[in-house]
Order: sequence, then C-alpha cells, then structure tokens
Amino acid sequence: MSFLDTRSRRRFSPEKLAKHNLFETPHLFADVYCVGAGQNQKPHRHDGATKVYYVIEGEGVFRVGDEERTLTAGQLAFARPGEIHGVENRSGKELVLLVTMAPNPNVS
Amino acid sequence: MSFLDTRSRRRFSPEKLAKHNLFETPHLFADVYCVGAGQNQKPHRHDGATKVYYVIEGEGVFRVGDEERTLTAGQLAFARPGEIHGVENRSGKELVLLVTMAPNPNVS
Repeated sequence: MSFLDTRSRRRFSPEKLAKHNLFETPHLFADVYCVGAGQNQKPHRHDGATKVYYVIEGEGVFRVGDEERTLTAGQLAFARPGEIHGVENRSGKELVLLVTMAPNPNVS
Repeated sequence: MSFLDTRSRRRFSPEKLAKHNLFETPHLFADVYCVGAGQNQKPHRHDGATKVYYVIEGEGVFRVGDEERTLTAGQLAFARPGEIHGVENRSGKELVLLVTMAPNPNVS
C-alpha cells in the first residue's frame, strides 16, 4: 500500500464536498477532496498543523488568512498553523484536490 | 506567499535531478523535483519522517521498501520512516514530481 492512485478516489457527492482518505502516517495524512460545482469547505483553522491544498483538476477559489486566489491544476495553497483557510468551487466544473495535513491530528 | 505554482519551478538540469523548494513550515516541506530522462534519486531512507512523491507529469519507476512500481500523473508513492525509497526516470520524457516530507528535518 505504498503506491496509490488519486484517480481511484475521484467520487463526487451531490450534497457536499467529498473527502476520501489516501493514506496516513503519524506525520501526515493525505486526502482527495472532490468539490462539485458550487460546493465549498468553509474557512476554518488548525492550531499546530500545516495544511496544503494542491489542485489536481479544475479551478477553485482559495482563501488563506485575508487573501483569496483562484488556482488551477499545478497550483497550491498552504496554511500555516492557526491561519484561516478554505476553498470554494465557483466554476461550473468539478474540482479535485490533493490535501495534506501535517502532523496527523488523528494520531497522538 | 501562501499561493504557489509548481509550474514556475519546472526547470531541469542536464547533470542530475533538480530539486526546487516550494515552501516549508515546521511540519513539512514541499519541493518540485524535475527528473530528466535517465536521471534518478538513489534509494535512501529517512528515520523519523514520511516522504511522499506525487507525479505531476511524466512517468517514473518508484521503489518503496522491496516494491517497485511505474507511476504516472495523478499517482503517488509514500515511504514511512525508515523505509527505503527512490525514483528513476526510465522513460524518454521529462518527469515532474511534487515531493513532501514531514516533519521538516531542517527545523529542529
């Protein structure tokens, strides 16, 4: 299980952003987020963790702190500990993200 | 500097694999590796850290532990602490990776 395909986690939900875990270790976890048109992850923050959103496919509007930026495939946004961050899919198309959080908050 | 473009780090070196840092926090660092045809990162290990290779473009042969797998865009390989890992570009084309390591070994 050291080799994974993000495409195998490409499943959207009509109700809300769908999160699919890829793997986790004590140091980080990696998810695929499938964000349908009009869906979002509300701005929030994590104390003591770094979060990275990498755009695999589509276009999203990312907020980190007070800044907002539209990103497409190959671009990323990251939030340092305590920084507000979120993403919104205002495009008419599907958005797929590789999301990493370190350290893994699920492991003490 | 919370928003970055991996494409802006797409620079190859004729001599060897080129590593370009994207950003770092105490929890992780992220690099872009540009691996020319025939170039490689020799198998090695990190005690106490998780390493992730995500394929942005091209095709690479990844080793983790005793396993070897050919991966293309959208696929990833990860190595747990102490696990041997490396990558080789045996294709005739350029290979671009997003590489994450957590925790950041450069920060004590």
